[in-house]
Amino acid sequence: MRISALAARSGVPVGTIKYYLREGLVPPGRQTSRTTAEYDESHVERLRLVRALTDTGGLGIAAVRRVVAVIDAPDPARLDVLATAHDALIGGGAPEPDEADGEASESDEDDGTEVEGRARRWAVQRGWFVPEGDAVIGRLERAWAACEQADVIVDEAMLDQYADAVEQVARVDVTSVPVGAEGAVRRVVVGTVLTEPVLSALRLLAQRQVSLQRYRHDERL
Amino acid sequence: MRISALAARSGVPVGTIKYYLREGLVPPGRQTSRTTAEYDESHVERLRLVRALTDTGGLGIAAVRRVVAVIDAPDPARLDVLATAHDALIGGGAPEPDEADGEASESDEDDGTEVEGRARRWAVQRGWFVPEGDAVIGRLERAWAACEQADVIVDEAMLDQYADAVEQVARVDVTSVPVGAEGAVRRVVVGTVLTEPVLSALRLLAQRQVSLQRYRHDERL
Repeated sequence: MRISALAARSGVPVGTIKYYLREGLVPPGRQTSRTTAEYDESHVERLRLVRALTDTGGLGIAAVRRVVAVIDAPDPARLDVLATAHDALIGGGAPEPDEADGEASESDEDDGTEVEGRARRWAVQRGWFVPEGDAVIGRLERAWAACEQADVIVDEAMLDQYADAVEQVARVDVTSVPVGAEGAVRRVVVGTVLTEPVLSALRLLAQRQVSLQRYRHDERL
Repeated sequence: MRISALAARSGVPVGTIKYYLREGLVPPGRQTSRTTAEYDESHVERLRLVRALTDTGGLGIAAVRRVVAVIDAPDPARLDVLATAHDALIGGGAPEPDEADGEASESDEDDGTEVEGRARRWAVQRGWFVPEGDAVIGRLERAWAACEQADVIVDEAMLDQYADAVEQVARVDVTSVPVGAEGAVRRVVVGTVLTEPVLSALRLLAQRQVSLQRYRHDERL
């Protein structure tokens, strides 16, 4: 199909498709003349995936590029599906250019040094494996520091309770992706990104439920 | 302090502060002449909060505006802290203009009607309270539909397992915010937004941990 038909089929405007093509998020069509190309169902599917990752998953263009790169060409030498998937998700610890707004926002204080290493110490104490220079623990450090800076107090005990709960989430995640299966990297990456909004919505519903139960319980006292 | 000092203190560039002032995310300073205004520590704090919500929490400007509005002037007639906080978080079910990219992306098919009501039926079956026209369940519906459209299979049983885990998260959340306490709305809203990245990072760490345990277990077989 031509790009106009691809736009109609996928619901993504032609201009946006051209942008995705330039950014390498969608593979080029089969060139049929100097100015036209043919697209097929794989392009429709890819466009839906990109929209799901950006709109629902909230990923920036750089993150989507990493995800589709690992889906298109998973390194056959890398057997560790999870590490590959996590690298695609968080960019190997490099700061994501689309996370900041392009302007320097360094502060002379509150630069997080206070909790530097705190997340790692907590994780090791919990018995979790944390490789040297791990990007995931770096992300936890920064997220934890951001809470503290905004007076959202999260201590080690609270983090342990969250971690107990999240381990259950992870068991569901890992169970739903057979290790080494075809397309496992795609399923880990896309599954983790797209179930985040599901978990967020569940959290609000569960907050309401827990609050109602507690309130009813108090009434009975 | 003048705006330049505020920029130095907060690490937010002057141009960005002016943008936040125009958007109503930061209250105006005390006007000292036709062209200058005085700012104080409350502005430094507010700027840090806005940056935390946008950078760490990933909120768009419209969402930050709702959050700071409810923090600045919680309706004293509304006793339901949680409902107020949730409305601020998800905008009362209205589609967020900063969630889409401004261009129409409606598709003739896969518009989610297949799972319309599916989330509500699941929640009711679980025994969760879902008010008529609830925006939170609408968010779950859309997030669930987005998974299905991207071939990320999440069935009712899996959602129940996720919900079991998330109920534990919610118990921690609700326990950490005394009902009716001063600033409770702020703590629910900001706490929920800023702990999302903490939970996301914990999820990746827990996926790794669960996967390692399972792998070691398999080796022993």
